[in-house]
Amino acid sequence: MPVNLAPIDPALLFPVAGVEIGIASAGIKKVGRQDTTLIQIADGARVAGVFTLNRFCAAPVRICQKNLQQYLATGQSIRALVINTGNANAGTGLDGLARAEQICAATASELGCTAAQVLPFSTGVILEPLPSEKIIAVLPAAKANLSASNWATAANAIMTTDIAPKATSTQIVLDGKTVTVTGIAKGSGMIHPNMATMLGFVATDAAISQALLQEMLLAATDASFNSITVDGDTSTNDSYIAIATGLAGNTEITDASSSDYATLRAAIEQVSHFLAQAIVRDGEGATKFITINVAGGATYAECKAVGYAIGRSPLVKTAFFASDPNLGRILAAIGYAGISDLDVDQIEVRLDDVLVAIHGGRNPEYQESQGQAVMNQAEISINIQLNRGEYRATVWTCDFSYDYVKINADYRS
Amino acid sequence: MPVNLAPIDPALLFPVAGVEIGIASAGIKKVGRQDTTLIQIADGARVAGVFTLNRFCAAPVRICQKNLQQYLATGQSIRALVINTGNANAGTGLDGLARAEQICAATASELGCTAAQVLPFSTGVILEPLPSEKIIAVLPAAKANLSASNWATAANAIMTTDIAPKATSTQIVLDGKTVTVTGIAKGSGMIHPNMATMLGFVATDAAISQALLQEMLLAATDASFNSITVDGDTSTNDSYIAIATGLAGNTEITDASSSDYATLRAAIEQVSHFLAQAIVRDGEGATKFITINVAGGATYAECKAVGYAIGRSPLVKTAFFASDPNLGRILAAIGYAGISDLDVDQIEVRLDDVLVAIHGGRNPEYQESQGQAVMNQAEISINIQLNRGEYRATVWTCDFSYDYVKINADYRS
Repeated sequence: MPVNLAPIDPALLFPVAGVEIGIASAGIKKVGRQDTTLIQIADGARVAGVFTLNRFCAAPVRICQKNLQQYLATGQSIRALVINTGNANAGTGLDGLARAEQICAATASELGCTAAQVLPFSTGVILEPLPSEKIIAVLPAAKANLSASNWATAANAIMTTDIAPKATSTQIVLDGKTVTVTGIAKGSGMIHPNMATMLGFVATDAAISQALLQEMLLAATDASFNSITVDGDTSTNDSYIAIATGLAGNTEITDASSSDYATLRAAIEQVSHFLAQAIVRDGEGATKFITINVAGGATYAECKAVGYAIGRSPLVKTAFFASDPNLGRILAAIGYAGISDLDVDQIEVRLDDVLVAIHGGRNPEYQESQGQAVMNQAEISINIQLNRGEYRATVWTCDFSYDYVKINADYRS
Repeated sequence: MPVNLAPIDPALLFPVAGVEIGIASAGIKKVGRQDTTLIQIADGARVAGVFTLNRFCAAPVRICQKNLQQYLATGQSIRALVINTGNANAGTGLDGLARAEQICAATASELGCTAAQVLPFSTGVILEPLPSEKIIAVLPAAKANLSASNWATAANAIMTTDIAPKATSTQIVLDGKTVTVTGIAKGSGMIHPNMATMLGFVATDAAISQALLQEMLLAATDASFNSITVDGDTSTNDSYIAIATGLAGNTEITDASSSDYATLRAAIEQVSHFLAQAIVRDGEGATKFITINVAGGATYAECKAVGYAIGRSPLVKTAFFASDPNLGRILAAIGYAGISDLDVDQIEVRLDDVLVAIHGGRNPEYQESQGQAVMNQAEISINIQLNRGEYRATVWTCDFSYDYVKINADYRS
């Protein structure tokens, strides 16, 4: 079961004016499973996107990038997203691109826009042809299902190996108007930046310029989806999309130094944070949620490198699974994180607030019973002080269990 | 059980003139287990070493580096190695350094040399104080046990989580003289360059200059211990030592372009190769031995990066454990290996000689039954053609099984 991830309460997921969602069952992998999600967006909305850096990026990622570029060039706004689970349409060559385009074209003719105004998303098995005809066949059903209150259903419909749906919502006041920010995400394995095997969608009815929405999304992504790891595998399909419909009635945000910008950015970050952490809490086989805080670095990048070295170490992760305070493995990971002039004698390592290591060795006053008490918890923080600068970074990860192997050895069967 | 790793035949491990080995039981972790190995080296031998790049390198690694520097500066040859298992003496600060020095001093007084002529090695749990007094107490017993024919016993005595001892031996003719090269190694988990959690010792009775011995060792290490991964964790204690006693009677090799140099280097590489592969075959929980050949790269480094991205991917490794030809995971790993201008449409991927992927997608003629047949084997090669240059590299890895988690979750208990 996911680590401390409360079930979604659909009543707490506020609809976003100008966004409607319809779900259908295309039978891509399993008959009857809701696997196709259509998100219709009001005309004139701003849309921004961040995508995987994997060179084997999937066909839908390429089409998304192309269509977003066209949107920036022409101002013809994005009107729909189509998301399927069960097949990633990655490693599928020209055929995969053609099938993603067919889905865009069919959606466009269904909704009355152009194919370039549709963004496609896929998640699931790699290297298998996408049954695009099945998805196209259920687009009318998805359209008939369109509703502003389908966020919780969509959070379920985009899952793959996820156990729990991931969604959250918040409201703020901008310019005297109530503004909603609601987001959903999926992801559980192949989770490592840039980014995770994740799809994320956050929508707001705030009015904001496209350039600032993109900037806000990048910042929010870095501190959320680009700060998590489950297994160190960067996916082919990662996408995080922000939609701002502008229907809340606030004056359009065009100044990055304004307080409205700061307020909205904080709300987007809060939603992104929650979703990214939810992915780790639901990491394949996870039994522990681990926060790695690295402080005192000479650069942000080196703090993150130390966090990731720890967060992706199978030895660290299996020790956490066993609740075994085998903390030398943490030191070893710090040591190979790539900081060539690291003075290990300066480093302090704490489990929660228990000082474990100092001056390059074990804290003489540390008792294993203290470490054991922390390790027995479901939520653990590893706090590293490098004592060589003022930068800090946080990475979230989970432990590595038998179930991780089981899930990934059995995934296709 | 290790993958296709034949038991050691002690009769095939040729003694090396000038090298004697004694074993003892210090009771470091388990009473009665042979855990302390003393290797005595004839005066005048050349010794070269390669060590972990982990910044949290263990106390014995620091002492080795210091003593080897002193040897290079003074010419006072290294006379003994002392190896303990059960405790890594890493993350042990000043106390760890002092204890490693105490072992060197005690060995020196036992054998009649200086402490700087002794190299210490430790392997086992990190962050626990080394019970150096136990090791020192059994040095007389180890000395009494010294024999030229103890290689097989030593290969057993240096193991930690290893299931099988790792040793090999070869003979060549240099300058009309029979020359022996014999090596042992240990390692099974925390295996990733630079280097693996491994200790390796190779000895020859060839006469060769120290500079050329060091050069030969570096080259052999790169193509062996620095081309393997089990879990992506670079250890704190990795050490690979070459000893050349010069007692075979050949004219000293001082020219790197001589045929004698080439012959000896090939023998050292053959032994290094065997030992490195043996570590992967005995990788924690391994059921498959996987060779990843990456060809057609623009640089050697990028070929190795692709090999390692595949070789350390938990998703790839669990799929191999399940004999599941889920080959999209290989493409994903290639895609995130860090080649920013990689054209994925140029890549060909073969499982053994079955062409799986081409032109950025699945080979249209590929049948899953072909992939399944290869995946069912215990030895599998993944052959990647990048089609962007002339470089190539090979990385060896194993699969990722329930037993990997079990071994590492239970290691200390």
